[in-house]
Amino acid sequence: MRLEDLLFKPKNSLVMQSMHSKMGATTVNGDGFGVGWYADEGRPGVYRSTEPAWNDSNLRELSGVTQSRRVFAHIRATTGTAVQQTNCHPFRHEDRLWMHNGVLTDFHQVKRDLALAVDPDLFADIEGSTDSEMFFFLALTFGLRDDPPAAVARAVGFIEETGRRHGIAEPIQMTVATTDGATTWAFRYSSAHQSRSLFHSTDVSTLRAQYPDNPTLHDLSDDARLVVSEPLGDLQGAWREVPESSYVVVHGAGEDLHPFAPVAP
Amino acid sequence: MRLEDLLFKPKNSLVMQSMHSKMGATTVNGDGFGVGWYADEGRPGVYRSTEPAWNDSNLRELSGVTQSRRVFAHIRATTGTAVQQTNCHPFRHEDRLWMHNGVLTDFHQVKRDLALAVDPDLFADIEGSTDSEMFFFLALTFGLRDDPPAAVARAVGFIEETGRRHGIAEPIQMTVATTDGATTWAFRYSSAHQSRSLFHSTDVSTLRAQYPDNPTLHDLSDDARLVVSEPLGDLQGAWREVPESSYVVVHGAGEDLHPFAPVAP
Amino acid sequence: MRLEDLLFKPKNSLVMQSMHSKMGATTVNGDGFGVGWYADEGRPGVYRSTEPAWNDSNLRELSGVTQSRRVFAHIRATTGTAVQQTNCHPFRHEDRLWMHNGVLTDFHQVKRDLALAVDPDLFADIEGSTDSEMFFFLALTFGLRDDPPAAVARAVGFIEETGRRHGIAEPIQMTVATTDGATTWAFRYSSAHQSRSLFHSTDVSTLRAQYPDNPTLHDLSDDARLVVSEPLGDLQGAWREVPESSYVVVHGAGEDLHPFAPVAP
Amino acid sequence: MRLEDLLFKPKNSLVMQSMHSKMGATTVNGDGFGVGWYADEGRPGVYRSTEPAWNDSNLRELSGVTQSRRVFAHIRATTGTAVQQTNCHPFRHEDRLWMHNGVLTDFHQVKRDLALAVDPDLFADIEGSTDSEMFFFLALTFGLRDDPPAAVARAVGFIEETGRRHGIAEPIQMTVATTDGATTWAFRYSSAHQSRSLFHSTDVSTLRAQYPDNPTLHDLSDDARLVVSEPLGDLQGAWREVPESSYVVVHGAGEDLHPFAPVAP
Repeated sequence: MRLEDLLFKPKNSLVMQSMHSKMGATTVNGDGFGVGWYADEGRPGVYRSTEPAWNDSNLRELSGVTQSRRVFAHIRATTGTAVQQTNCHPFRHEDRLWMHNGVLTDFHQVKRDLALAVDPDLFADIEGSTDSEMFFFLALTFGLRDDPPAAVARAVGFIEETGRRHGIAEPIQMTVATTDGATTWAFRYSSAHQSRSLFHSTDVSTLRAQYPDNPTLHDLSDDARLVVSEPLGDLQGAWREVPESSYVVVHGAGEDLHPFAPVAP
Repeated sequence: MRLEDLLFKPKNSLVMQSMHSKMGATTVNGDGFGVGWYADEGRPGVYRSTEPAWNDSNLRELSGVTQSRRVFAHIRATTGTAVQQTNCHPFRHEDRLWMHNGVLTDFHQVKRDLALAVDPDLFADIEGSTDSEMFFFLALTFGLRDDPPAAVARAVGFIEETGRRHGIAEPIQMTVATTDGATTWAFRYSSAHQSRSLFHSTDVSTLRAQYPDNPTLHDLSDDARLVVSEPLGDLQGAWREVPESSYVVVHGAGEDLHPFAPVAP
Repeated sequence: MRLEDLLFKPKNSLVMQSMHSKMGATTVNGDGFGVGWYADEGRPGVYRSTEPAWNDSNLRELSGVTQSRRVFAHIRATTGTAVQQTNCHPFRHEDRLWMHNGVLTDFHQVKRDLALAVDPDLFADIEGSTDSEMFFFLALTFGLRDDPPAAVARAVGFIEETGRRHGIAEPIQMTVATTDGATTWAFRYSSAHQSRSLFHSTDVSTLRAQYPDNPTLHDLSDDARLVVSEPLGDLQGAWREVPESSYVVVHGAGEDLHPFAPVAP
Repeated sequence: MRLEDLLFKPKNSLVMQSMHSKMGATTVNGDGFGVGWYADEGRPGVYRSTEPAWNDSNLRELSGVTQSRRVFAHIRATTGTAVQQTNCHPFRHEDRLWMHNGVLTDFHQVKRDLALAVDPDLFADIEGSTDSEMFFFLALTFGLRDDPPAAVARAVGFIEETGRRHGIAEPIQMTVATTDGATTWAFRYSSAHQSRSLFHSTDVSTLRAQYPDNPTLHDLSDDARLVVSEPLGDLQGAWREVPESSYVVVHGAGEDLHPFAPVAP
């Protein structure tokens, strides 16, 4: 599909959410944004900007002429780190994309301990200063390329253990999405068990039969699946919430839901 | 005073308003901002940026080390024109600053007619594409340097006459502030007589007696005066609304209120 | 082809030229850049930035994943107007792209007269403040959509006549390229008959036979044609200079060369 | 003095050097810049931007209205790390400023080992990703606040030892300047003993007597001292080169030259 079909055209599109999020932790998510997309095989392209998504004319241009089968998009509200491209999601490592809504609580306190745990061969590739990128590099260290659910579970377990050692009661709050271009994994978890919202779309062909006049649905192929923090529109039955402490795996036309629990080091 | 005493420290500071305006036409004013200030005599400095004011680290730096006796500051929510520095307020011509909240209705329709009325010697100095800058150049054309209230009245009269010729019922909505560094003029007017809010501060020495513990008041000199779209805090008695269709002249410790009416061409 | 095959991979790529132009009027062209490209039918996408091309990471990303059959790219060295996206080339109007190397001499003096000659229906669409965009709008006014060579000849004639009326001896210096996505027209002309350099590529299949080991040639289709200010590499026989006061029309695998002369109003 | 007296007015001003450096390692230094200055007592302000200094209109504005007794200014040519504000010099810690021309060779290889040596209490304050900021934090770790020459000597010794452990023959190339607002220390050193250029100005009152017509000299007070990578103009006798492997201490009207040698860990 064209990127604009996701980013601009829906009633509650991501670009709309950047100014007026209904379900997010913050109403305004204007501290930069990013889009990652797969053109053909291999490494995805990433476009990141420190401007608010709603007034980036290049994003609008790009979205109007770019087709992709797999798109990651993120709008940012900083929890304190600098507003710069290297702090914008999605982050990329080789063919992988990663984005995170949430926070590693009191990151300033635990940053060094987390950094030391990153695979020394990967350490110097950390480009920005966010908790979210550090989390990505921990997941890579713990095997993201081989087994994403296990790697994320170990990374979260390590983050919780490190945080608690520093007296932090609830070390992590997260929804995370990661992909290799073919499969997407999306996680919902927080130490307090009050995680931010996460939804995935239901079967498009059924929806299309229910809503024959909805133009967005026409541009989606039968095996399209959307994983979002907030529904993009009001279609009854179109969205299914990912439950607390679980993750969804999207591959082709199918999706599977699994429970998620951190694995302590 | 230091710029940060105005821009960052008050409870409802301009930078706070950029993300959560209470009284503005739009809640988010994140499409750039600008600050103009007089160092000594002569031409003021202007710092303008397309970033949201709330995350511009240079603005925070600058505000922490810059003193000025006269400061203009503006946060922008575009009504359609490009987000670029030359479209950010305040606008400057020689020693004059100008900023405008509001809109010239259907500007796209009247732009050419307004442009043709600008003094040919000034025409090529128009740098941006906004209605607000065009309004400034019309006011300059109509004598802003000699008699600001008369020049603004003639510019508004011309804009209303031009708009109505194009079938626009309510051609202008405005609060406008302009200064030569010594005197400030602030106008509140709209063709529909439902203008955006405008306030000025009352006598600082009286306030300071009332609120001996308020730190912001301590940093203000007795002849300080603030003219704002929204009160910067909750101090009872600190703010007086500028009435519909009027303007206030601030000079030294005094301010005068006058009625305002457009002068048709 | 991929955009990076043009923008980054050649030895003397446009991005290299942005820092070290060999033949340009200025060595450093770091005041922004732009790329326009046609995805499918219809309106091209335009990506413009005020950063130097050499350090824009989004340009590199975009170029790595974007395919296009027709690409316009431009690096800018301002002759005085603001560094902002709306002043970056290529300019677009509906399905047309336009870019200009050169200058309208003493533009500040003639700007108003030129602006008044622009079709009133187009006037308000002028977004930036450059001489190059004004030249584009004059060409549109004089019929660019119907007959590009005639429209450019009339626009240049009008610019020269206007300039001379203001006492400007040599009013224009230009290479100009414009396209509708299918055909490209590229002009080389200056009032002083000392125009900036302009080259077009020769037949790719012949070149590929001559240089079987050159990877750039492999990625080009047989009907590819390049029109550039400076050759992108050292291949003998690959580039043919467009002579002074002439224009080249590129369509499919063919190109035609014609003389160019302004048409006075 | 006004910042513009340093940054814009001299014939070979820093802003001129950003486009055409005569003596620098790179001709174009367009990957951002920064200015740090002391207003009164305490923490200096820092203005940093990713734009080339030559076309940053805010820098020009700021420089025209800002007075300071102690100014640090830097133009950047990246050696590979991201073009972002947090990578621009000068870096600040409390009342200290730091800027570095040069490179930590193969920084990617040694980054983790250097990071681990940074004082754990300072580690999380590292905001960017450059070798220069890491060098600053090592100097802070080794006592920069108490004894700058000793701290820099130990930091350089540690960097050389770490680099050689990784097989890097010449681990560091540097001119470094640091200040607390009252005293400035400027170092010239490289492992290869072929350091980049560094100059300091001679006595201003003598110069003023020699060149009674030079306007820049008139605006400088008798105790003004300039420490620069390249002379700002052609005045014979105005500049004295800091020799290889030495440092200069500037305090009030005096300057002292000392030999510099790294101290191995």
